[in-house]
Amino acid sequence: MTTNDQGPAAPVAATVLRPLRLRDVRLEGSFLGELQATNGTVSIPKGAEHLEEQWDNFRNVAKGAADAEYHGPNYEDGEAYKWLEAVAWEAARSEDPRLLDWLESRTELIAAAQDEDGYLGTFVQSGQRDKRYRQLDFDHEIFNMGAMIQSAVAQFRATGRTELLDVARRAADHLHRTFGTGQDQREGFCGHPVAELGLVELYRTTGEQRYLDQAKYFVDAHGRSILAPGNPGRAAYLSDRIPVRETTAPEGHAVRAIYLAAGATDVAIETGDTELLGKLETQWQNMVQTKMYVNGGLGSRWDGESFGNPYELPSDVAYGETCAAVAGVQWSWRLLLATGKARYADLIEWQLYNAVLPGVSLDRSKYFYVNALQVRADSDDSDKRAPGNGRQPWFGTSCCPTNLMRTFASLQHYVATTTGDGLQIHQYAAGTIETDELKLDIATDYPVTGRVVITVREATSASLALRIPGWAYGAEVTVQDEVIPGVPGTYVKVNRAWQAGDRLVLNLPMTPRLVHGHPRVEGIRGSVVICRGPLLYAVEQVDQPDGVIVDDLIVTSPRLDEVLGDGVPLITARGATWKPQEVLYADEPARPADVVPITALPYYQWANRDVGPMKVWLPLMTQHS
Amino acid sequence: MTTNDQGPAAPVAATVLRPLRLRDVRLEGSFLGELQATNGTVSIPKGAEHLEEQWDNFRNVAKGAADAEYHGPNYEDGEAYKWLEAVAWEAARSEDPRLLDWLESRTELIAAAQDEDGYLGTFVQSGQRDKRYRQLDFDHEIFNMGAMIQSAVAQFRATGRTELLDVARRAADHLHRTFGTGQDQREGFCGHPVAELGLVELYRTTGEQRYLDQAKYFVDAHGRSILAPGNPGRAAYLSDRIPVRETTAPEGHAVRAIYLAAGATDVAIETGDTELLGKLETQWQNMVQTKMYVNGGLGSRWDGESFGNPYELPSDVAYGETCAAVAGVQWSWRLLLATGKARYADLIEWQLYNAVLPGVSLDRSKYFYVNALQVRADSDDSDKRAPGNGRQPWFGTSCCPTNLMRTFASLQHYVATTTGDGLQIHQYAAGTIETDELKLDIATDYPVTGRVVITVREATSASLALRIPGWAYGAEVTVQDEVIPGVPGTYVKVNRAWQAGDRLVLNLPMTPRLVHGHPRVEGIRGSVVICRGPLLYAVEQVDQPDGVIVDDLIVTSPRLDEVLGDGVPLITARGATWKPQEVLYADEPARPADVVPITALPYYQWANRDVGPMKVWLPLMTQHS
Repeated sequence: MTTNDQGPAAPVAATVLRPLRLRDVRLEGSFLGELQATNGTVSIPKGAEHLEEQWDNFRNVAKGAADAEYHGPNYEDGEAYKWLEAVAWEAARSEDPRLLDWLESRTELIAAAQDEDGYLGTFVQSGQRDKRYRQLDFDHEIFNMGAMIQSAVAQFRATGRTELLDVARRAADHLHRTFGTGQDQREGFCGHPVAELGLVELYRTTGEQRYLDQAKYFVDAHGRSILAPGNPGRAAYLSDRIPVRETTAPEGHAVRAIYLAAGATDVAIETGDTELLGKLETQWQNMVQTKMYVNGGLGSRWDGESFGNPYELPSDVAYGETCAAVAGVQWSWRLLLATGKARYADLIEWQLYNAVLPGVSLDRSKYFYVNALQVRADSDDSDKRAPGNGRQPWFGTSCCPTNLMRTFASLQHYVATTTGDGLQIHQYAAGTIETDELKLDIATDYPVTGRVVITVREATSASLALRIPGWAYGAEVTVQDEVIPGVPGTYVKVNRAWQAGDRLVLNLPMTPRLVHGHPRVEGIRGSVVICRGPLLYAVEQVDQPDGVIVDDLIVTSPRLDEVLGDGVPLITARGATWKPQEVLYADEPARPADVVPITALPYYQWANRDVGPMKVWLPLMTQHS
Repeated sequence: MTTNDQGPAAPVAATVLRPLRLRDVRLEGSFLGELQATNGTVSIPKGAEHLEEQWDNFRNVAKGAADAEYHGPNYEDGEAYKWLEAVAWEAARSEDPRLLDWLESRTELIAAAQDEDGYLGTFVQSGQRDKRYRQLDFDHEIFNMGAMIQSAVAQFRATGRTELLDVARRAADHLHRTFGTGQDQREGFCGHPVAELGLVELYRTTGEQRYLDQAKYFVDAHGRSILAPGNPGRAAYLSDRIPVRETTAPEGHAVRAIYLAAGATDVAIETGDTELLGKLETQWQNMVQTKMYVNGGLGSRWDGESFGNPYELPSDVAYGETCAAVAGVQWSWRLLLATGKARYADLIEWQLYNAVLPGVSLDRSKYFYVNALQVRADSDDSDKRAPGNGRQPWFGTSCCPTNLMRTFASLQHYVATTTGDGLQIHQYAAGTIETDELKLDIATDYPVTGRVVITVREATSASLALRIPGWAYGAEVTVQDEVIPGVPGTYVKVNRAWQAGDRLVLNLPMTPRLVHGHPRVEGIRGSVVICRGPLLYAVEQVDQPDGVIVDDLIVTSPRLDEVLGDGVPLITARGATWKPQEVLYADEPARPADVVPITALPYYQWANRDVGPMKVWLPLMTQHS
């Protein structure tokens, strides 16, 4: 059983790495600290306004207004709970008095709406009680309760408040009575995973074995087409076509698939199931090697919001839902704790900067549901989610904004871990880390530069391990006078009798670089992306010379230059445009024409000025430079 | 008013080119004749079996069984009518006694099911009469009646039978009373166009102006979001976002968009609306220049079965529904009649061979709904429509098979036109043409070779024009001893006092060629397709050396060789494979490794042996040859 000072995902079983306590890390200033601060001052309060109508559903159910009209899609309880989870994490680090007010008032509403038997789901409770568990595939009932359980655990860990935790226990007990192990009770699970994650966390928080058993049952029930008999397409969508233990690469609806994988990882951790853990590592590896966009985006198909076949990653029509990247961070974090392998922390960083962060505007008030890697000239998409329409203040399905909020509000949790006799720093951001082993001040403007200065505040003999990202060839750690070269994709571990005031300086090389794609990925053949440190870059119309359309740009030299200014630098490249061509299909190949300079900005920053044509991959034709 | 010997699309207003009568052209032997014959002997009879259950819907309605269970999706009446249209056209050229039996028995069923007021739609008539015209967006009621009207006109033109035509008139009168011009009556139209086409043909057949007026109203009513107020995404899907007269390129659901464009072209022809015709030509031109796959496939998105943005044509995930290509042929045919421009006949040929014909198996018993341009190794799509699963005997939504049947059964109609004092041959196939102006025998094995021998059977002074396809550089027409060079994309017109026995020999160059893509089309950059004459080629796994995966092939030389055998030749190229690469994104570009030969077959023939990896576009790297 864990105490009330944990962050998200706090295993009770032994793991290679242990998470720190929620308040052990403080992000202050710099990049991630500023992100976390504005998430709290702008995103979360605006979320309160956008979600106000959703709480009416709870008010109406609590009042017993059986014929009250239900607002929103049937999964919207879950999104409100995600926001409330963000409020809880934020309350652990901010003095804003509204946070506790929101926690208290919303918890009262939720508790008042819960049925006697523990059931909670305002869609069904709004005059449609005959629909209870009638459509496990699409009614999101267990999904909603699962998100509430996550929110309740967060509220307890962040504030010590147990009111919502009591609601969560009643709901979890109700689920256990209803579904149990599926043998004596009802066979089935929810078409949208998430309860698996919530139930394991509730087990961790309460010590009640039945919640872990329930999560394990839900994980293992997938893959026998219970939800979609005779319909393999729908079964794949619902992560119900192939058992988790037989899945070699994720398929179907990306958010569903990755939440399930993360939940299964939690189950593997707590049940000591090393075989399942191995299968999940294989699944993760195949995802990264065959089913992930260059920005870490997951789910290539708009159709079904789903993973495609291996190497099916058409960059010009990428889907890459924000929530899938958030789920990816959650999954990698659990695998990192379980195994200690740097690859998982590497992907957390890459997805945070390039697939999660782009989901919110620089002013923290607007969101992308879909994360495009290209917007064409003359594009005209009537779908509100289409990135060519820019970030939106909100969506009828508000999962992406609320998922970002809860991730950013608990961001410090992903920075470091402990092994009891040493600390591992996985992510670099200005702030402080105070554990039983080490007390550190971290000064850096990463990712503006690659210099991270870590100062020991108290004498100690604990070891300190620093992650060297996979892209960081030439990284060095300087400890006092000793220079230790870093091997990309590993940790530099420093054992030393630390004195107060000792400094470690990590230098990560931030030289801009070109990255090429796998030849089986059509659509990026002969093309490159520009990267710098942990940031993917994009070319956006507003930065190019007049008359040059982003769609027509070619990189003609491997030479890249930085344009320094405030914040993260822009990067320029030498380029050309294609000779105009009228016909789609021609007897001759396309040829370069005018020479033009190319300017790229960090991908996460795009669409914060004009929203226009944008590309991440550019063709490379060096023979014409 | 037209007589009962016309084919599909028979304008009464003056057009630049006039269609021939239904029986003026006979296809015999060779390529298209064989296709038409086997369509009649295999596809249509098998269709009768597959559709048997659909006719129960009519039987139940006719019996007045109000609570009978309805079979199939709500548009399935329409697919049954398409099959019956195929039966009608086939009855004009075949002696099979089953054809007239089917026409008679099915017509009786349809007539018996029609309501007193002319309404006909077994989905609504099966105990859901309160739903009549409640959901114009998705209930397909007018779509179904429109397909019935098309079928009735076909039956009348092919056989002179008027029973179904009477049903059609009653239905059309009912539609006119219900919707009229939308001013005094109900405002609205069907979310799935097709009735526009049927009503114009009914006007042509009966001379009743109100049917043309009704078609014109339905065409013009589109584009004001009547069916999807406040929902531009759905409006685009339903061709209701932009008025037809303001549409510059097709958008939304491809089949809907192109049926509407074809119907609008019919309206423009019959109302003499040259401005509308001009807009439709612009729309067609923009489709061909920005929104068409290399095979002529239309509709790049699985999501919404829809057109994408300009140049959004990811080849590895092409949708290209068979029905959209059929609709494309219908649209181009109307534009060809209206304008006489060779480009329209060019596209008809290209789509027939490369986007329509691939929809059916060589044995004429199985169908593709989606026409992929690539199937990856290790692909695993649970959607029945996914081409990696091979052609299917039938689909719950049977539009594609029935659309192919009616197209092939009337294929001879698209071969030639008349101007009164001359004949234009647009498509080349063995058979005979007998009009008032010219009687010709045509001998050819096109597209196996490019040699077409046309023999005049009766003396005449009518001119004869032969289309030189846009790809046919070096084409020649030899008339007796005179050699006339052909200009691709135009007609060679021969004026002469013909004597019986005079011969014209058309030689179309069939040298295999490489075709390149527009640089804005991601996914085909630096790649080529192999073409020969009117045929696109594909590489299929079953033809490659052991151990070589289609996904990894590179063409390394522009040299192509034919492998002669029975039928259309295979083509071989020199190639290589990519060096294996584990990671998706790398510091170095992909490099070629082993040298391998590449074998390509006509695209329409793929997936008739094993169904495995297939590609149409291959990267070209000649510096490594």
